[in-house]
Order: sequence, then structure tokens, then C-alpha cells
Amino acid sequence: MKNALNRGRSPALFADLYEFRMACSYQALGMNQSAVFSLFVRKLPQTRNYLLACGLHPFIDMLERLSFTGPDLEYLASLSEFPQSFLDWLANFKFSGDVYALPEGTPFFANEPILEIRAPIAEAQLLETLTMNQIGLSTLLASKAARVVSAASNRPVVDFGSRRAQGFDAALSGARAFFIAGVSATSNVEAAARFGLVPAGTMAHSYIEAFESETEAFESFLKTYPETILLVDTYDTIEGVRRVIDIAQKLGPNFKARGIRLDSGDLGKLAEQARAMLDQAGLTSVEIFASGGLDEHKIEALLKGGAPIDAFGVGTDLSVSGDSPSLDIAYKITEYTGIGRMKFSTGKATLPGAKQVFRTYREGKAASDVIAGAGEDLEGKPLLECVMRNGQRTKPASGLAEIRSHAQAEIASLPEHLVALEPAGMPYPVSISRALYDDEIACRARIEIANPRKAHSDGE
Amino acid sequence: MKNALNRGRSPALFADLYEFRMACSYQALGMNQSAVFSLFVRKLPQTRNYLLACGLHPFIDMLERLSFTGPDLEYLASLSEFPQSFLDWLANFKFSGDVYALPEGTPFFANEPILEIRAPIAEAQLLETLTMNQIGLSTLLASKAARVVSAASNRPVVDFGSRRAQGFDAALSGARAFFIAGVSATSNVEAAARFGLVPAGTMAHSYIEAFESETEAFESFLKTYPETILLVDTYDTIEGVRRVIDIAQKLGPNFKARGIRLDSGDLGKLAEQARAMLDQAGLTSVEIFASGGLDEHKIEALLKGGAPIDAFGVGTDLSVSGDSPSLDIAYKITEYTGIGRMKFSTGKATLPGAKQVFRTYREGKAASDVIAGAGEDLEGKPLLECVMRNGQRTKPASGLAEIRSHAQAEIASLPEHLVALEPAGMPYPVSISRALYDDEIACRARIEIANPRKAHSDGE
Repeated sequence: MKNALNRGRSPALFADLYEFRMACSYQALGMNQSAVFSLFVRKLPQTRNYLLACGLHPFIDMLERLSFTGPDLEYLASLSEFPQSFLDWLANFKFSGDVYALPEGTPFFANEPILEIRAPIAEAQLLETLTMNQIGLSTLLASKAARVVSAASNRPVVDFGSRRAQGFDAALSGARAFFIAGVSATSNVEAAARFGLVPAGTMAHSYIEAFESETEAFESFLKTYPETILLVDTYDTIEGVRRVIDIAQKLGPNFKARGIRLDSGDLGKLAEQARAMLDQAGLTSVEIFASGGLDEHKIEALLKGGAPIDAFGVGTDLSVSGDSPSLDIAYKITEYTGIGRMKFSTGKATLPGAKQVFRTYREGKAASDVIAGAGEDLEGKPLLECVMRNGQRTKPASGLAEIRSHAQAEIASLPEHLVALEPAGMPYPVSISRALYDDEIACRARIEIANPRKAHSDGE
Repeated sequence: MKNALNRGRSPALFADLYEFRMACSYQALGMNQSAVFSLFVRKLPQTRNYLLACGLHPFIDMLERLSFTGPDLEYLASLSEFPQSFLDWLANFKFSGDVYALPEGTPFFANEPILEIRAPIAEAQLLETLTMNQIGLSTLLASKAARVVSAASNRPVVDFGSRRAQGFDAALSGARAFFIAGVSATSNVEAAARFGLVPAGTMAHSYIEAFESETEAFESFLKTYPETILLVDTYDTIEGVRRVIDIAQKLGPNFKARGIRLDSGDLGKLAEQARAMLDQAGLTSVEIFASGGLDEHKIEALLKGGAPIDAFGVGTDLSVSGDSPSLDIAYKITEYTGIGRMKFSTGKATLPGAKQVFRTYREGKAASDVIAGAGEDLEGKPLLECVMRNGQRTKPASGLAEIRSHAQAEIASLPEHLVALEPAGMPYPVSISRALYDDEIACRARIEIANPRKAHSDGE
């Protein structure tokens, strides 16, 4: 049994069976013309005023290398349903299409394409699950992190989420997404190694408990890590702070601990008490780090209440986007053989054709978006960029620091009521261009003619 | 940049930095005696009456093989904080401890150990993040799936969740956990390949849209897949059903489609209309498959309303455990140098020592649990088993079918009000043995003597 980190297969099998069946049928029917599929979110979660596009570069890396390995093909052959011609096509699979996408760190809204793939229909279809899963995960987590970072109001936020994240990939892709959204460091060493992030962390309660006394534990840890942060709430927070002060007085100038960490109880009140005790002992430069069940609302409340907290460690709620653990993300065909495609399904209708989004600004702030056809040239900044052409990157991947700067600037360009934690009373205005609207009407009419209604439906 | 499926490193770096720092300090201090760490959930989510242990065997596989690769060690060395003696120790790392655990598929409750690790303290400490993340993920998802399966009341449930799951690992470990909890098949081909599950799925709306008409699309797909399930809601559900019937009448005995799928709208009402139309056309064996935003409550309501639905595809809410996307899972030291360890932190106090859980039954149903010391021999069935000794499996991994059967029997042994979807008014009785209680008192007293209170704390 293979685990999720060590595997002999490529991500090419990370697809739903129906994608292979459709691709196989297309091949049997000789349908190999170009299609456009669009990735978008149907509706923002109630607790999000905007979403932050994330996950593009790792996804493009995967697309560049995507191929079916021997074990992949053997498995598919073992299902005894795919003809050899289809397995041969898979054996030679290499993504050959074009990708247009929002740069990572770009805020976006409901129904705006995050990414569009133009490729032979079977290729584009096989990427459905991979695209939704990967861009969806990073976007979900970056969007949550942007709120936590905003609440922390320029104080560092450290990602403590790996232990509660939904698996390896969520923890690792999450650490990357959090960094892009403004998180300062990660507890996860693998994530730090993989993405060049700053790893952070000092001691757990278990360390304190392994010694006879808290004082002995603190002193022992300081021997190896003189500039550490000491965790003070194992037995009694205030007593823990007092012991840190006793040690500081004993060590004098050799006491170099950077801070203390509070991880339970009334963090606001304890931070105030600890700050007063530390200051009174002349330890004004010893910082207070808070963690334990935090989310953006608790952080905002602590800071509004004046809690003297210098940095936050945020885990669970950040790592699973607790208040909204999924996005209503969709990957839908919008064009095939140069003709617009759409569905009418209740609550899930789509808009036909390849698209572009134009964002206009007023006094440096984003003012409105228009979703338009890809061929239109409207006022405002076009948001989607061509990142792959004929299966090749159009330019090297941006560095993470650059992406993070872009995200920061983009978030700063949003109207303030969107960046606030409360639901925006006035949602950001997103409209559809006149030409796209006309296309929709024409496409709908064409489909209705080709699919005449005959049943007496009293439903819907 | 590496993606989360293809990587040069082992899961050994999937740890929080503080674990390495504590381990390094232990080495510097010569602290290498045996410790016990316990994995448990502090509190059940409000919408769970029990949790289902899951993820053990893949985790044990990882433990058996866990080692630091060259790139892992190079990265750690690059941090310029670990002495060579510590890096050498990591280079030779092999897990040498014992693991006691609930068999996969065992229901459990708050504060009961899911798994306990007894190993030299640094070894056990380094496994904290890996253990919590991996067992936590599978347990979270299996516990959710058990509810969905229960609501479906013996109708097959298919996992459609990969696209919305939080990353690769969540989708793949999820598919395994769902199967253990009673889900019948998965849409994810990689999961099916990896775990020997049944892959399932037929067509997406995109397939219908790629053709001029729905009828042409259905007929085309049936050429390759005569026994498929046809998706009927792309344009108008009732018209879609009518077109299926027209095709059936045209093909006569050559019409072999197994069913239709409804994916939007009022599923209960549409299922009734579709069933009536199909039956009237003599297509009584054509089944109705429903999907689209389903969870356990919607499934229960549909079936209580008499909806003639034969099988369910469940995605998002299942794949992220939407109503409770995280567990309050903890991995805490409970013993070191043969002495019980505990912390007093507000809301997070722990119980000292290695443990066992004894479950008593009345008339074939679980009646109560007692959490006891590992050395106790109480009435009832001891739930924790030794699965690893000195770093070696004690017996081969159980097959998935066997684990699934165990889960089924275990869930059937729970009182009915716990299996119901509504919060159990009367929670399942879990108590602490007298001896464990005495240990707790003695341990607390010992720690209080070693950590005398001197500050005037008015907090907490």
C-alpha cells in the first residue's frame, strides 16, 4: 500500500473515471478539435468578500511534465474497457494546449475565470479533477489566510496548521498559499524546504513535562537555544511568566530569550498581565506570542481590546479554512469547434466562449469588473494572462517573494470594505459585457433549436 | 518547485521545526529514555456522536520506512543550527518504538486514545505532526462518511469528492477512508488504482455540450458504453429523460443503459417524475442516480420524502467533512522515564500514563467505555492493540475489505441514537478508571510540589 507522498505514479491518474471514458469516446468518434474549459467559482462563500487566486505555478509545473507512467497505463489496461488505441494515445500524452490565468495573488469574484484551458477536447477534459483540486485548494487557503493576515494588522502570523491540515498536500500547498497571502513563517519543515519559506517553532508542552520542573525545562532549552520563545502555559501561565523572569534575573545579560508564548486561557487578559510583569522586571524587549484556537475574528477582537500581543501562531482554522472549507469551484466547457457551449442546469448555468476580465480603477482602488469575451478590448486592465502556449510556459515562473508582493499590492488596491472581515454590505460590482450577453442569448437559442422541447414538464 | 505528489524527500521532514529543536535539545542533554505519547480527540464535534478510527495501516507503513534522505539532511544542515551529532543521529534514524492503536474502523469517543507511541523521547516527538495529520485526516473523513452511508440506508454511495477535496492526499486518503466507512466506489482513478477500489463515473455535462444535441450526445456515448448512466440535466431534466426514453424505444432490446443521473434542481421531485416516465415507458430497470450538493441530511430528507433514488454521488460535503472540517486532535506526552506526565493548561489538561480503553456490551450493543491505565485489567473488551513492537509490525496489515467489515460490525454494535444523524441527547458514557484517577491526583501533586506557586495570579 502506497502512502500519499511516496508513489510510483504521476498525477496523470488523479482524474475522475468519467474523464477517461469521455476522452475514449471522443477518440472513438474522431472528435479531437480544440475546446475551451473555464475554471471559476460560482458563488463566493458568505464569509468571503473576495478570493485570492493561488496555485498557478505549481499547477503549470505539473502540466508541463504530465505523462502516464508504466504503472498508470497498466492499471488502465487492467480495467479491460479501454481499446489499445486509447491506451497508446495516453502513453504519448503530453499537454499541448494554451492556458490563460489570473496571476497568483490576484483578487477575483464570482463567475470570473481563474484559469482557462484551450486544448484538444480530450486533453482539456482529462485535466478537470487535477485543475479543480489543485487551484481550488491553494485559492481556498490563500483567501482564508489573507483575512487572518489582515486581522493581525502588520503583526507577524506564523502558520501552525500542518497538524490539523487535511493531509500532506493541504499542509504543504497551504504553507505556500499562506506565504503568498502574507503569512510570515511556517512550522512545517518540509514546506520550508520545498518552497524556501522561513521555518519557525521552539518548544511544545511535552518538553516542559519531560522535566521535573518548568524552571529546569526553560533553563535546559535555553542552553541550546538562548534566543528562543518560551512556552509558559503548561501548568499555570502567570507562574510560567514569573519563572521566566526569575531566570532572566539570574542570568542577567546572558538572558537572551526573544519572547514567551501563551497557548491557552484568556489570551487578552494573560497577555496584559504578562506584559506588565515583564515590563516591571525590565524585560520590555521580551515579546508576547499568542496561539491556541485563533482565527481572524479572535485576532481582531484581541487587538481591538488592546492585547499587547506581538505575533500570532494560527493553526486549525487557517489550515482548513474552517468557516468555509470548500469553494463552489467549477471547470466547465465553454467552447468546442469554435462554437460557444453552455448548460442551463438549475443554479449552474454557464456563459459561453473564452473570456477576459477587465478591471477598472478609481483613485487607485479597484472600482468594477466586466467579464467579457476573450476577443473584446474594453476599458480597464485585462486580468487573464497567457501563461502557457502549445504546452510550453510563456515565461519563467515568478518567484514566491514576487508573487507575495503582487498579492499585497492587489489586496491594497481593493476597496476597504472588501478587505474588512465583515460581509461587505455592498458587493463588488461585476458585470457581463454586452457582447458576451449577446453571445449567451445566441448560444441559448441555438441549443434550444437543436434540442426541441416535447415533454410536458411541470417541474423546475 | 516540487509538487505535492512528486518529491525527492521522504515524509520524515513533514514535522514541525520545534520537534527537531526539542529532539536536538534532548540529545544535547543526553535525554533518550522512553516516552509515551497519546493521540486523542479532546472533544467530539457537535455534529458527531462518535468518531471512526482510520488511517492506521498507511501510517504504520510510513513508520516502518521512515528515514531522512540526503536532500532532507542537506536542508536541515543548511539551517546552520543543528550540530553534526544530531544530523548523524537523523541520518541513522529508524523508528524503534512500540505502537498501540484502535483497529481501523473502531468507533471511539472524546479523550480515548486512538493511538499511543512508546519510544525514545526524541523519536516519539519527531512523529507528532505526521501522526496528527495522517490519522487525523483519515479519521475525520471516515467519521463523516459513516454518516452519509448511514443516511443512504443501504443504497450505494459513490465518492465524487476529489475535485473539491483539500488536495491530493485528502482526495486519496479520503477515498480509502470512505470505503472503510461503507462508501461503494470512487470517481478517482488514482485512488482506485492505489487501494484496489471500484472506480466509477460516466459522463459530464461537457460531453453533452460538445454535441449539437443531447440526443446525439447520448447516442454517441452509448456506442462506446452501452451500459452507462446518462446525465440528463444539462438543458432540461424532464426533456433529458424523455430523450433517453425515445432512444430506448428506438434501440429496443439494444438499449442497455443502466440508469440516468440527476445533478441539479429539486432532486426529489425530479426523481419522482423521471421514475414515473421511465416506468410508463417500461424502463423499470433503469435506475436513478442522484448527485449535486448532497450531504447526509439532504439524503435522509430525500429518502424520508420517498424519492425513488437508487444510488447517490456525494462530493464536496463528504470530501471536506463540511460541517466539521477539523478534529480537536492532540498528541501529548503522558509518560517519560516511567513517570506519568500531564499538563494543566486551561481546557487542555491531559491524563498521565499509557492507557487502555475497555468497552462493555449489553445485548450486543456497546454500553460504556472506561479509560484506564495500560496495566489495568478491567471488565470489557480492551480496544487498543499492539500493532508495532520495536519498530516492526506485529502482524501483516489487514486488507481493506476486512477493515470495512470490521467497521460495519462495529458501527452496528453502537446504540442506535449514536448512529442517527441528530446529536445524541444522551452521550455515550465514557468514564475514567479509579486507578487512573488516582494516578492523575498523584501526578498533579508531584508536579505542584516541583513547581511551587509564587506569583499572585488573579487570572484563570
